[in-house]
Amino acid sequence: MVNADILYRLAETLEARKGADPASSYSAALMHKGVDAICKKVGEEAVEAIMAAKDGDRLHLVREVADVWFHTLVLLAHQGLGPNDVLAELARREGISGIDEKASRKGA
Amino acid sequence: MVNADILYRLAETLEARKGADPASSYSAALMHKGVDAICKKVGEEAVEAIMAAKDGDRLHLVREVADVWFHTLVLLAHQGLGPNDVLAELARREGISGIDEKASRKGA
Amino acid sequence: MVNADILYRLAETLEARKGADPASSYSAALMHKGVDAICKKVGEEAVEAIMAAKDGDRLHLVREVADVWFHTLVLLAHQGLGPNDVLAELARREGISGIDEKASRKGA
Amino acid sequence: MVNADILYRLAETLEARKGADPASSYSAALMHKGVDAICKKVGEEAVEAIMAAKDGDRLHLVREVADVWFHTLVLLAHQGLGPNDVLAELARREGISGIDEKASRKGA
Repeated sequence: MVNADILYRLAETLEARKGADPASSYSAALMHKGVDAICKKVGEEAVEAIMAAKDGDRLHLVREVADVWFHTLVLLAHQGLGPNDVLAELARREGISGIDEKASRKGA
Repeated sequence: MVNADILYRLAETLEARKGADPASSYSAALMHKGVDAICKKVGEEAVEAIMAAKDGDRLHLVREVADVWFHTLVLLAHQGLGPNDVLAELARREGISGIDEKASRKGA
Repeated sequence: MVNADILYRLAETLEARKGADPASSYSAALMHKGVDAICKKVGEEAVEAIMAAKDGDRLHLVREVADVWFHTLVLLAHQGLGPNDVLAELARREGISGIDEKASRKGA
Repeated sequence: MVNADILYRLAETLEARKGADPASSYSAALMHKGVDAICKKVGEEAVEAIMAAKDGDRLHLVREVADVWFHTLVLLAHQGLGPNDVLAELARREGISGIDEKASRKGA
């Protein structure tokens, strides 16, 4: 079982790249471009994950979901947030009323 | 720091709900509807995360990213995959060539 | 050949429903909810069009593209714009440099 | 009022570019890449339209909606369909039960 702390290591790296020379890395460049550029990537990767799922291509799906998670981490870092906030939200839902709390919250 | 193992706990719960009575829970119902219904939710939540980021509403953004992660976990579970696969992919990229491997892979 | 003026008729109807009783029609209700609700629908319908295309289901694709166009018309109406603006933009691109002007503009 | 027949002229051009040398134009290249590449563009442009609307940037919104319509036309052409099909669907809904037929169809 892969240790989920990879999410925290990625977040640390992203934090270090905020404000770094845009030419130094992909993520520094993306954060330098700003929130619209990051949001575009989140949208693109979500669409690619959807298409991979429709194809039933599991290897591709894993890669695209990794891209979605990675770019949401970039978005969080850019807004001064991190995986801790998201994991705490997921744990809070589990703690209060199970993973289906979301459904009741949304009336879904 | 919230333990990232919440992702594995969610995956276990989702696994148990695969094939369960659709009326028993939100996630059982969603998986029963099939891949299109799950993909629609992934797309919707991605759009909502993008809009929250555009609003600069950090609390809303956290909730929407949690929704994105949750629904990608549902999609993975439905396809016989789990967070381990995604975290391994993220760790693999980090291990081989850093988090910017993705950029070189995509020529981005 | 269906007369494309249906787009203008829809725009007139939407204009009349702006500010109308939200209970009176779907589009009045959607515009009353505001820009986020309309944007969510645009995103949803785009994802559904993509999934229909992936399925190679042409009848479904036509319906979903109609939904995309309809909801972009709602978004335009809500922002004080209409099909005339979009058609003029498409014609402008054609007039100046062909339909591939967009590519050069975007460097795509 | 711009004549909506621009949609038909674009469709004719796209038809001519199907199977043309991918190097000859943006749309020939996109159709040559196939349905996934076209769907990705539809998704991207929808996200950009949503972001322009969130910004309240009306000029940008017009351009992005034009991009959405253009790329859905490419998708239609690639699947052997055209604007006639979509306009007929919109007119059918208007004819039968008004533009809100869609809502009743979806139970929305």
